[in-house]
Amino acid sequence: MDELPPGIGQYDDFHTIDWQRDIARDRMRHRYIIKKRTEGIWDFVRGIHDAWSGWLCVLLVGVAAGAVAGVIDIGTQWMKDLKEGVCPQAFWLNQEQCCWSSNDTFNEGDHCAQWYTWAELFGHFRDDAWAFIISYILYVMWSLVFAGLAVLLVRTFAPYACGSGIPEIKTILSGFIIRGYLGKWTLVIKSIGMILAVSSGLSLGKEGPLVHVSCCIGNIFSYLFPKYGKNEAKKREILSAASAAGVSVAFGAPIGGVLFSLEEVSYYFPLKTLWRSFFCALVAAFILRSINPFGNDHLVMFYMEYSRNWIFVELIPFIILGILGGLIGTIFIKGNIMWCNYRKQSLLGKYPITEVLVISLITAIISFPNIYTRMNSSDLIKLLFSQCGVADISPLCDYNRNFTNVNSRIEIAEAGAGVHRSLGLLTLALIFKLCITIFTFGIKVPTGLFIPSLVMGAIMGRMIGIGMEQLAYHYPYLWVFQGACSTGENCLSPGLYAMVGAAACLGGVTRMTVSLVVIMFELTGSVKYIVPLMAAVMASKWVGDAFGRRGIYDAHINLNGYPYMDSKEEYIYTALAADIMTPRRNESPLCVITQETMTVDDIENILKSTDHNGFPVIVSQESQYLVGFVLRKDLTLALANAKKTQEGVVGESHILFTAHSSQSSLGPPAVKLRKILDMAPITITDQTPVETVIDMFCKLGLRQVLVIHNGRLLGIITKKDVLRHIKQLGNEDPESVLFN
Amino acid sequence: MDELPPGIGQYDDFHTIDWQRDIARDRMRHRYIIKKRTEGIWDFVRGIHDAWSGWLCVLLVGVAAGAVAGVIDIGTQWMKDLKEGVCPQAFWLNQEQCCWSSNDTFNEGDHCAQWYTWAELFGHFRDDAWAFIISYILYVMWSLVFAGLAVLLVRTFAPYACGSGIPEIKTILSGFIIRGYLGKWTLVIKSIGMILAVSSGLSLGKEGPLVHVSCCIGNIFSYLFPKYGKNEAKKREILSAASAAGVSVAFGAPIGGVLFSLEEVSYYFPLKTLWRSFFCALVAAFILRSINPFGNDHLVMFYMEYSRNWIFVELIPFIILGILGGLIGTIFIKGNIMWCNYRKQSLLGKYPITEVLVISLITAIISFPNIYTRMNSSDLIKLLFSQCGVADISPLCDYNRNFTNVNSRIEIAEAGAGVHRSLGLLTLALIFKLCITIFTFGIKVPTGLFIPSLVMGAIMGRMIGIGMEQLAYHYPYLWVFQGACSTGENCLSPGLYAMVGAAACLGGVTRMTVSLVVIMFELTGSVKYIVPLMAAVMASKWVGDAFGRRGIYDAHINLNGYPYMDSKEEYIYTALAADIMTPRRNESPLCVITQETMTVDDIENILKSTDHNGFPVIVSQESQYLVGFVLRKDLTLALANAKKTQEGVVGESHILFTAHSSQSSLGPPAVKLRKILDMAPITITDQTPVETVIDMFCKLGLRQVLVIHNGRLLGIITKKDVLRHIKQLGNEDPESVLFN
Repeated sequence: MDELPPGIGQYDDFHTIDWQRDIARDRMRHRYIIKKRTEGIWDFVRGIHDAWSGWLCVLLVGVAAGAVAGVIDIGTQWMKDLKEGVCPQAFWLNQEQCCWSSNDTFNEGDHCAQWYTWAELFGHFRDDAWAFIISYILYVMWSLVFAGLAVLLVRTFAPYACGSGIPEIKTILSGFIIRGYLGKWTLVIKSIGMILAVSSGLSLGKEGPLVHVSCCIGNIFSYLFPKYGKNEAKKREILSAASAAGVSVAFGAPIGGVLFSLEEVSYYFPLKTLWRSFFCALVAAFILRSINPFGNDHLVMFYMEYSRNWIFVELIPFIILGILGGLIGTIFIKGNIMWCNYRKQSLLGKYPITEVLVISLITAIISFPNIYTRMNSSDLIKLLFSQCGVADISPLCDYNRNFTNVNSRIEIAEAGAGVHRSLGLLTLALIFKLCITIFTFGIKVPTGLFIPSLVMGAIMGRMIGIGMEQLAYHYPYLWVFQGACSTGENCLSPGLYAMVGAAACLGGVTRMTVSLVVIMFELTGSVKYIVPLMAAVMASKWVGDAFGRRGIYDAHINLNGYPYMDSKEEYIYTALAADIMTPRRNESPLCVITQETMTVDDIENILKSTDHNGFPVIVSQESQYLVGFVLRKDLTLALANAKKTQEGVVGESHILFTAHSSQSSLGPPAVKLRKILDMAPITITDQTPVETVIDMFCKLGLRQVLVIHNGRLLGIITKKDVLRHIKQLGNEDPESVLFN
Repeated sequence: MDELPPGIGQYDDFHTIDWQRDIARDRMRHRYIIKKRTEGIWDFVRGIHDAWSGWLCVLLVGVAAGAVAGVIDIGTQWMKDLKEGVCPQAFWLNQEQCCWSSNDTFNEGDHCAQWYTWAELFGHFRDDAWAFIISYILYVMWSLVFAGLAVLLVRTFAPYACGSGIPEIKTILSGFIIRGYLGKWTLVIKSIGMILAVSSGLSLGKEGPLVHVSCCIGNIFSYLFPKYGKNEAKKREILSAASAAGVSVAFGAPIGGVLFSLEEVSYYFPLKTLWRSFFCALVAAFILRSINPFGNDHLVMFYMEYSRNWIFVELIPFIILGILGGLIGTIFIKGNIMWCNYRKQSLLGKYPITEVLVISLITAIISFPNIYTRMNSSDLIKLLFSQCGVADISPLCDYNRNFTNVNSRIEIAEAGAGVHRSLGLLTLALIFKLCITIFTFGIKVPTGLFIPSLVMGAIMGRMIGIGMEQLAYHYPYLWVFQGACSTGENCLSPGLYAMVGAAACLGGVTRMTVSLVVIMFELTGSVKYIVPLMAAVMASKWVGDAFGRRGIYDAHINLNGYPYMDSKEEYIYTALAADIMTPRRNESPLCVITQETMTVDDIENILKSTDHNGFPVIVSQESQYLVGFVLRKDLTLALANAKKTQEGVVGESHILFTAHSSQSSLGPPAVKLRKILDMAPITITDQTPVETVIDMFCKLGLRQVLVIHNGRLLGIITKKDVLRHIKQLGNEDPESVLFN
């Protein structure tokens, strides 16, 4: 294998990668290994290792992602409980573990004798006003401490560890380099920060950050395998699998994770990657289940069984839920983007620590008095999703029912006072969650928004569900309920409405479709409710798209000016390649290199006077016929190399890109650089429509194309040119594209 | 919108489509509609209709696919029962429906008084030797009648209705035209033929054909919407969705259907299509469930609940099942391809009707005596998948158990005589199924192989499962079973092994991966068993791939010489574009057209003397600089058109592809054909590696690329050239590619 000089083939920070080139390099490497394989036992082993390294790598990534997720879950559990109390015998145990040693039967919501709330520790017992105040103060204090610690860690050690990470990962997977974004510091700090941030009670989830952590793991492990570590295009296959594993461990939804990776995150997704992603996601889920942080036997997070199937007429409220979810999503996206824009442009951006502290203070103060916001979001979702059983003591299940027989089916009943009070509290919780999440998503701690979106949707859904249930109770003979509700049985599950609402709201925020339905279905483990979920998610997406096509992740990509070219979107433009290429009409001509008439000095001048990343090589200045393309980086390195190793190279030496020198042998020796010339640059004609150009950029993963007309070089189109053109058409500032 | 003359943009039979061109046409159409939308209420409605037509179309396809599948299921049910007996009061009822009117409790396997077996109808009652003989004869007779009818219908009305259809659909979706393959006659005959073929008891399933039927529906409905009907590239979006719906109704597995379409069938699969496919698949499944042919409330076909979770050590037998599945798959593929090759080359191919009759005779004669082959394949699968319950009377569940308490858990027990006898029968059934399916797949009736593969795998799995169970019974204290089996409870479910084996075998035959796991998981409705399924399917795929990378569908594509370019496969070739282009070195130069020096006569001579589908247009014969590309079809039509409509066009008239005539105005008027010139042909340089060329063909959906060197046209590479090159490298006959 021709070993290229070191540095060639590497990319700088904030550069875009050339997929074709990287994949070609991998093919060369692969061919070399296959050829060598017959030459000896060591080479054979190397060949086998190479063939398996993809699987081995995703296996390791899966195991590590599962393990890290398990540790994070356990850590979160402990710190969340720490806000309420402590296990004085062994402070490192969380409430549940603390009570294991107790002989009392341990009821959820209640607590055992071993476990002391802070108020109890200070000698105040439960029904005391002081106890409430002490609990309140300590709740707020711990929130501030956790949030403060999280933001300090992020600011000090890993500034990239903030936010959800999904917009950046989308950008990276589309072929962009952000050095350090997936590094080990980011991994460590994001994991710890995530535990702190979630425990602090801020309105955020750990699902997005888990995807980021997973991708960090993928990136780190890929360096064990030079095949992936040294090839940015191949590395992205591992990252795709890692992001699937991230969602898989976040929700215990391996199939959903793969589809999320396919639909939302990944860019280049060959089918081999699909299969490996699935494997990675499954391994991660399996490891997590073995660690068993949810404390149950199910792979799923919120295991639900509703006793009744849904009836056809319920599709109407489900679609209404979808519409509401789309509206909430839109409000959230618009509000959040406005706030982020304000943060960027105002002084606020300079005080991230203060911002985090203020928001966590407000969150803690408002959250505590309302039990539905005080409790942890996952528990709230679980509560809202569940159906009321016989033994249920939660106020949400306070119906006027008589249970004469434990085995009889639950009958439909009138809502009691507890339900009415709960409805009020839930309304307040919904408003509060929506407002606070708008301000929370984007602060400098790890923030995910799956859980807050699910909470909002679940609250909305449960409320509508209770409404429908009461409708069915009061008017059981309404024709729409006919047959299903007239028997006196409970024919509607408000929990199902919560689930559908949660899906709708998450759909409105993220604009995910298939992957969302599959995640919800895996989350709850019930196949039966795909149709309601689908209907709600479709309605939500359509409503959301009517107000703006971008989901929250795309909106943040756009906000931050990441160079993400969306292969999903259809661009309806009439421009031709000639209209977007450099040089435009009437501009100074393109900076080119001729194949055999230029000297070392000429080239060095060009390198000094311009900052292009590459230069087309042409036959001669007169003819302008295209020969190939050479990268600045390769040219610089090759020139330096030639000066060092080749004798007699002076400023007047000619540089030859041809195979044979047509120069006379007089004068200083020529520098032959054919080796670094890309003889197969992708070219298009000036009449090519921009859509085709975009299509080629997206599908082939190009960095640039050369524009020719009747064989002559006219100009060049880089990814940046295309992105600027798109921004311009969207009436946005084309200079906001972050790019080198 | 510039209306092109009729015929332009259409393709001939057995031609390959130009995706870029078709998609560009659709963009033009779309832009035109958007522009017109403001012009009036009618245009506005048209715009709305256009925007919704994709959804409307897949909705219709889903509804129709669900309905057709329902009708087919009901028809099959009735005709299968007809082989055994009849309902004398109402012959159009199947056994189950016939017994509905009965007051007897109706046990499966047994039959009610209203239903008469043929033997009973002739006055012989059950335990009579004559009864057996009469049943046998009538069983064979009905088989022959059904199979004969099926093949006659296929031969007479729709020759394309034979086989599974999936290889052809893959080819069509990859951008090939086979006229009539998805027509209405194929739809009708394949549906009827499928009922007949399945009822005849041949070893085939209806899953592949259902995908074909679904695609026919998709094709027919697409003609209602000119956006899809008149644009081959867009039509394929509908067909992708339709194939998802096909799998969805075949198994009640909407997500699996979408993944099947993505992984196995589709070629061009933008994310919009993913979402629509999901919708289509779900609608189809929903409609089918409403028709409710399975007679149960579940969306799933074989609803299974195993009382115990699997234990870790069981992964070993699961992987062994995977390996065996891979081997069975390999044997099946090799055997079937050998037989199909023999059929093609020998006289046998001339007597399809005889072949069908002989095979169905053999199948019926051998099947009847063995209860496991006599029973319908779906029922057999269901039986093998299920776990033995308390009330089970099947010989497969004949364990030496004492049921003292109905509520106690089923304990592990020694296998009784019934189980031992069943094992013998199952072994025979497995061998028979494997042999007969090799000969059956490819006969001229609709044949699917999902069900036969599942049956083989399920038999294999159940046998190994029983073996493991007995091992655990006899050695409960073996360390591997420790903790799980020592309590005396039944710790292993042979049914689960059957399920895993079925997946492994189907994986070995089709080499599906993710979609297969998802289908199995939806088929059985159990999330818990994804890990075993995944392990087995992976093992099966690896073992299968070691013996030959092609699954049965790809093998059939190759056998039939369909021009399918696999975007999944990695091609490891070192050739350059210059090596595979036409003309090769030392061949006569390419047939080209100059942009302004040729006359009508010249062009007509070129058209007459060659049969290329298109011609490059160059600046002049001397310079060879490329201007564009013109299609034969367009050229012929435009010339005929010009002669008809433009006055004074004679043989000496010049043909101009330039915008401005540089000719003198003397002589006959020139024909301006710039309009039909594609000014943006895709070009590559001669140094481009073949892998990149293949990548471009696959990803951009090209028909041809032009090869240039320093601006000069060197040659052309068509899809055919690439496919021939691939065949050559595989040491196969390059002329076997079916292509125009």
